[in-house]
Amino acid sequence: MTDAPRAPISRFPVPPRGDLPDELRERFDEVEEKSGFLPNVFAALSWRPAEASAFFAMHDALMDKETPGLSKADRELIVVATSAANGCLYCVVAHGAIARIRARDPFLADQVAVDWRKAPLDERMHTVLDVAVRLAVEPVTVTTADQDRLRTQGLTEDDVWDVGAIVSFFALSNRLTHWAAIPPNDEFYLMGRVPRG
Amino acid sequence: MTDAPRAPISRFPVPPRGDLPDELRERFDEVEEKSGFLPNVFAALSWRPAEASAFFAMHDALMDKETPGLSKADRELIVVATSAANGCLYCVVAHGAIARIRARDPFLADQVAVDWRKAPLDERMHTVLDVAVRLAVEPVTVTTADQDRLRTQGLTEDDVWDVGAIVSFFALSNRLTHWAAIPPNDEFYLMGRVPRG
Amino acid sequence: MTDAPRAPISRFPVPPRGDLPDELRERFDEVEEKSGFLPNVFAALSWRPAEASAFFAMHDALMDKETPGLSKADRELIVVATSAANGCLYCVVAHGAIARIRARDPFLADQVAVDWRKAPLDERMHTVLDVAVRLAVEPVTVTTADQDRLRTQGLTEDDVWDVGAIVSFFALSNRLTHWAAIPPNDEFYLMGRVPRG
Amino acid sequence: MTDAPRAPISRFPVPPRGDLPDELRERFDEVEEKSGFLPNVFAALSWRPAEASAFFAMHDALMDKETPGLSKADRELIVVATSAANGCLYCVVAHGAIARIRARDPFLADQVAVDWRKAPLDERMHTVLDVAVRLAVEPVTVTTADQDRLRTQGLTEDDVWDVGAIVSFFALSNRLTHWAAIPPNDEFYLMGRVPRG
Amino acid sequence: MTDAPRAPISRFPVPPRGDLPDELRERFDEVEEKSGFLPNVFAALSWRPAEASAFFAMHDALMDKETPGLSKADRELIVVATSAANGCLYCVVAHGAIARIRARDPFLADQVAVDWRKAPLDERMHTVLDVAVRLAVEPVTVTTADQDRLRTQGLTEDDVWDVGAIVSFFALSNRLTHWAAIPPNDEFYLMGRVPRG
Amino acid sequence: MTDAPRAPISRFPVPPRGDLPDELRERFDEVEEKSGFLPNVFAALSWRPAEASAFFAMHDALMDKETPGLSKADRELIVVATSAANGCLYCVVAHGAIARIRARDPFLADQVAVDWRKAPLDERMHTVLDVAVRLAVEPVTVTTADQDRLRTQGLTEDDVWDVGAIVSFFALSNRLTHWAAIPPNDEFYLMGRVPRG
Repeated sequence: MTDAPRAPISRFPVPPRGDLPDELRERFDEVEEKSGFLPNVFAALSWRPAEASAFFAMHDALMDKETPGLSKADRELIVVATSAANGCLYCVVAHGAIARIRARDPFLADQVAVDWRKAPLDERMHTVLDVAVRLAVEPVTVTTADQDRLRTQGLTEDDVWDVGAIVSFFALSNRLTHWAAIPPNDEFYLMGRVPRG
Repeated sequence: MTDAPRAPISRFPVPPRGDLPDELRERFDEVEEKSGFLPNVFAALSWRPAEASAFFAMHDALMDKETPGLSKADRELIVVATSAANGCLYCVVAHGAIARIRARDPFLADQVAVDWRKAPLDERMHTVLDVAVRLAVEPVTVTTADQDRLRTQGLTEDDVWDVGAIVSFFALSNRLTHWAAIPPNDEFYLMGRVPRG
Repeated sequence: MTDAPRAPISRFPVPPRGDLPDELRERFDEVEEKSGFLPNVFAALSWRPAEASAFFAMHDALMDKETPGLSKADRELIVVATSAANGCLYCVVAHGAIARIRARDPFLADQVAVDWRKAPLDERMHTVLDVAVRLAVEPVTVTTADQDRLRTQGLTEDDVWDVGAIVSFFALSNRLTHWAAIPPNDEFYLMGRVPRG
Repeated sequence: MTDAPRAPISRFPVPPRGDLPDELRERFDEVEEKSGFLPNVFAALSWRPAEASAFFAMHDALMDKETPGLSKADRELIVVATSAANGCLYCVVAHGAIARIRARDPFLADQVAVDWRKAPLDERMHTVLDVAVRLAVEPVTVTTADQDRLRTQGLTEDDVWDVGAIVSFFALSNRLTHWAAIPPNDEFYLMGRVPRG
Repeated sequence: MTDAPRAPISRFPVPPRGDLPDELRERFDEVEEKSGFLPNVFAALSWRPAEASAFFAMHDALMDKETPGLSKADRELIVVATSAANGCLYCVVAHGAIARIRARDPFLADQVAVDWRKAPLDERMHTVLDVAVRLAVEPVTVTTADQDRLRTQGLTEDDVWDVGAIVSFFALSNRLTHWAAIPPNDEFYLMGRVPRG
Repeated sequence: MTDAPRAPISRFPVPPRGDLPDELRERFDEVEEKSGFLPNVFAALSWRPAEASAFFAMHDALMDKETPGLSKADRELIVVATSAANGCLYCVVAHGAIARIRARDPFLADQVAVDWRKAPLDERMHTVLDVAVRLAVEPVTVTTADQDRLRTQGLTEDDVWDVGAIVSFFALSNRLTHWAAIPPNDEFYLMGRVPRG
């Protein structure tokens, strides 16, 4: 075991929960009750309540959605693939955990994080990840032809927007997480790896 | 004059203003009255009201702020430099216009967009842009040493956060704008270039 | 307005006009009379008269030419797109000005400089810029297949050569301008943006 | 659970164990007995016995070694960091498992794989990984100054060679694994994550 | 003539030949007798006999082989192209010499080293080098489609493996050579350039 | 020997020598008499006499010059290093030949072409090549600090200009040579490799 001291939740100040505006505090309590712990990104953003509220509102609008063309698991895999391209540990580990649970697959998140091209996904998701990773790292190269490829794979107009918006939102999230050096909670590393009894 | 038809405001549907939720419609009316026109990004995001509200809330929390260490003009120049690195026409042109006005300088925005390294800025802003552009294009390489360099230049803890948060927010904005192919309004191209009579 | 002192015309010595060889001095007088000012690149190169003469001779042989397959405006847009890829402020601003005038379009030069892929150009010019920008930044990847694509778009053998020669000449010009840190003349920034009365 | 069929052990033929030369078969039996399963890379390389023997000989000469300057755990982390840079799933997952066990740390391998710069390692290992990853992806940039930095951190001449040789060997291993598309055994994903009872 | 002192054979210790294990010493004697000199890579690796033996065993298994789909000359050209991409002087010069001799062509090795795309090779070898160089520098992008292209060009299953294994082996060799800074023997520079009388 | 037909001198038309303007024809005759053959770049550019005259005038102004801070051999090595970075076979082979002769060293040109960082050059030339190669491939990153480093190494103001101008001129030359696919004359490959009797 390394002797390194546990990394702080953020390089920036983290206010006590009791000092937060009611809306955020209630949200945090709710998340903590549901998950069993409060993901560090909540605490780390809370010193800027307006930004935190906007951040979580946008997150939920894009991620808490299941459509025939883009399931919740698919959305998490977009996060995993693009966050890995950005070297964002928090997002790879936390959303990898959620992806394992949503996809009911203990291997897929690691496969997508390290080498999505060989991951055992269907042609639709290979197309989604190809476009998503390019939008993440070389946005200027993405064209209408890429969006047409998504439509050909069965994505609706709303699904197509969501692919781009999820990539865009995590372009923000990855950089903010790097900037504050937010570590993943220990709990995320193991979630979804061991079958529930 | 090219004969190409005027580009649409977005590749995705744009709802009539009257169909928008009150909060957005009032905001749009207010912006339009103040600026004389509605920037296309407002109309383009409005088909997703929850995302649009969060987007504008985060924008205002970061950009409508003047501190000794990071003026409104400085913030716009961060947007111009990083958006140019991402090849985002809308953000370079629209925020270039605002930067010209805020900095009362008709040349600085173009200088920063094409080659910020030679732009006539002080050492503080050269340090800010060096760190900002790296966070935009290679986020994994940014370290605490970079943040210390910003503090040495007189930025407060809040200013340092803002540098990272502005870069992060426009990492989102640049990609969403590419995805929807939002063109700048014609008005932006000339704003701040001609001295007001 | 920034308080930064006005940047010098070159990092290297600039001789008085009267000291120049007759051929250069006459050329400079002529350009100044026609344009109303002497573009800084002329003054900056004049301390090396032999190089300056060769530079302007090659420039004129390639740029002062209008063909059905490659108009003067098209040639300027090649300069704008590749100079932007090289981060050359002088060439983007000066040739952007000329492109606005030649194309009679106040927006096109900025569109091409920041994101030529979405610029409102025909298929021919998209092909030209795709090949030109690759020759500028990754010359080893350009093949005969790229030249065949240009011929398919209606370019003659002479036009094809000119595309490559213009890119090549501005590969030189961009680097020399970076090396001497030549700033654009203030006049270029506004030229072609305001309709003439 | 995805319905994708289980990926084969290699894109190339995999001979039955009984057909292997004695030396390889005995080695495989021994590894299988010790680990409880045969890592796929053994089976995948076995159709080329001479290459397989050389591969495992070089592996053992570099990895089964513990020195004050470079422990077995350190050596595995070099593999994890450089294999992640090469997008090699097999090596990241298999050597991540071994690194978790050797370092007695359930988190460190994932931290190093995604963002070694922020991993909780001492200055010595940060220097080792900085040089190692550059040797992996941009070998021409590595100089004697880099090796001097390793010596300053306490590595002996033998340790310095080993850093370079481990990176070099896994440059081979990563590419061969990509070429044959060897998947990690399922067992590796969970190894070292759960404390032994 | 530069006055720089002759570079040493390695940055690491080079033991006297007499101190080597019999197997290596005999091999070295044999190579020296056949070539007229001992290539520096032999001497440089000899301080690590186990690694050296494995290295030469793998080399010979891949390079001393002539098949209808991949001649000895073809194999050397794969080494030249990928070693040039890695900036490895020893491998470019030494294997360039062998390629000149094997291909009985005094120009081809230099052509492949600097710009393999325009080298006068058939479509088969252009396909081989395209895939090989990508496996060398961006291994994650290589797919089964690339291997299918090789099969379409007439390569057998064994040839396809060899392409990948040669690239992989020289990914190791190039990095180890950079690490030890092994210079090519003077003899290699001229070999195969002058027709034998 | 490959059976590939000899590559043509250019992808574009090559006029008979007798059709050239007197100035070019006389120049070509003189070069041919002095060298024993006409380098292909002369013939390839001759279909555009104005461009050819300017090209050769600029070449001679920069390359036919010997100063204490930058010898003719040094100038050729700048060409070799930057042309290799651009994958330009003609310039690497032709100027490599001239560099071998000027430096009276049969190895140095190949060493600089493949890995200038380890070439046996003094600190002055390592600084020159470091700045030169960056100006060739990432011109926007070159700053006044780089030019100050050259001055510290003893280069005069004129020498500093020449470094930048040589890189710039060969940025043009490399691209034009790629565009026309000009092969090196066979004679260049061997020049300067064998001691003159």
